Amino acid sequence: MRLTVRTDYAFRMLLYLAVHSDRLCTISEIAKAYKISEPHLMKVTHQLAQLEWIETVRGKGGGMRLARQPDEISLAEVIKTVEPDFHLVECFGNDNECSITEYCGLTAIMQEALDAFIGCFAKYTLLDILKSNQAGSDESFEKIVNFFK
Amino acid sequence: MRLTVRTDYAFRMLLYLAVHSDRLCTISEIAKAYKISEPHLMKVTHQLAQLEWIETVRGKGGGMRLARQPDEISLAEVIKTVEPDFHLVECFGNDNECSITEYCGLTAIMQEALDAFIGCFAKYTLLDILKSNQAGSDESFEKIVNFFK
Repeated sequence: MRLTVRTDYAFRMLLYLAVHSDRLCTISEIAKAYKISEPHLMKVTHQLAQLEWIETVRGKGGGMRLARQPDEISLAEVIKTVEPDFHLVECFGNDNECSITEYCGLTAIMQEALDAFIGCFAKYTLLDILKSNQAGSDESFEKIVNFFK
Repeated sequence: MRLTVRTDYAFRMLLYLAVHSDRLCTISEIAKAYKISEPHLMKVTHQLAQLEWIETVRGKGGGMRLARQPDEISLAEVIKTVEPDFHLVECFGNDNECSITEYCGLTAIMQEALDAFIGCFAKYTLLDILKSNQAGSDESFEKIVNFFK
């Protein structure tokens, strides 16, 4: 079970922009910082701009920045919007042909598990990614800033 | 975000065998009942037999049956064992190259969400899929049996 690369990259891009809130950032520098594909990032940028989570400035010296404060971007909103679908098993999709869907108890259990999964992200915003690391330290923001320097 | 077809088919196969506990079943009939790929099911069968959740009888009149009672098969155990991996984002895998893993707070939040997801399945066994449907009726088992007849 995996999230798509798109969602992974969306999180990384938002994180990068939050850390560099004092200036415009380019796709090229973000791709370089994470060593990831620039064309993939372009697609993500397009989507995040459409959602008005980031704003882009064209031309020389242009780039992008967050259009909202990090504590206004819910991680649940990111994952629900950017991930193409949550069709865990066939009966979650529109092309469902499973013959026992009507009687099977698995669908409801899958939905309960999915709700619990999304529910976890609903407790956090982009700011939480910056402020906490695996050890629970509050120094992460500074460490990430320094790392990207 | 999707589970692999393998996990979907494992659940369906276990369900089918639980419903037909009075006799041996063949891969061919299960594939036909769900209108799914026989070669895919064969791989699933092999894995479930290795795990000793099902037992197979070779030869003419052979087939397979559950090797445990439905209430002894935890849905969490199925999903954790059959699903190849839970590498939600790059930093969950062995080939992780994300440069900020050490400082990023997202990994811990992803893990929390994954634990909540798996935790839901831990509350249920194969018997629960048979006994409950989306409407919470206890008549599902009978309906599924009749459907497959």
